[in-house]
Amino acid sequence: MCEANAYIRNKDKETLVMEAVDLVTPEEGGIRLISIFGDQKFIKGHIDALSLVNHKIYITEE
Amino acid sequence: MCEANAYIRNKDKETLVMEAVDLVTPEEGGIRLISIFGDQKFIKGHIDALSLVNHKIYITEE
Repeated sequence: MCEANAYIRNKDKETLVMEAVDLVTPEEGGIRLISIFGDQKFIKGHIDALSLVNHKIYITEE
Repeated sequence: MCEANAYIRNKDKETLVMEAVDLVTPEEGGIRLISIFGDQKFIKGHIDALSLVNHKIYITEE
């Protein structure tokens, strides 16, 4: 499977916010993360970077 | 492997811009796509959405 773990990146700090993310969709004022298990989380921020071979999604909060 | 294909999304149209993308990094005025083969492409835009189980990265141009 090709899901990835989502991290909020703040300067040098990476905070895991969701594992096994499949979908990330834009939503009013931010983005919605949806995992392969159906878990959902809204984050006021945007996708900053990806490192897919390492299964990482980096998010910057706004 | 967990790379994905990057598409520019414009209304209902999806245009493939790079296959097998591993890294997407922010860069002045846009984002840089880097594939697992080392190909690179700069795009004036941002990551809009992800559908990782389907190996898709959606980009909106600015």
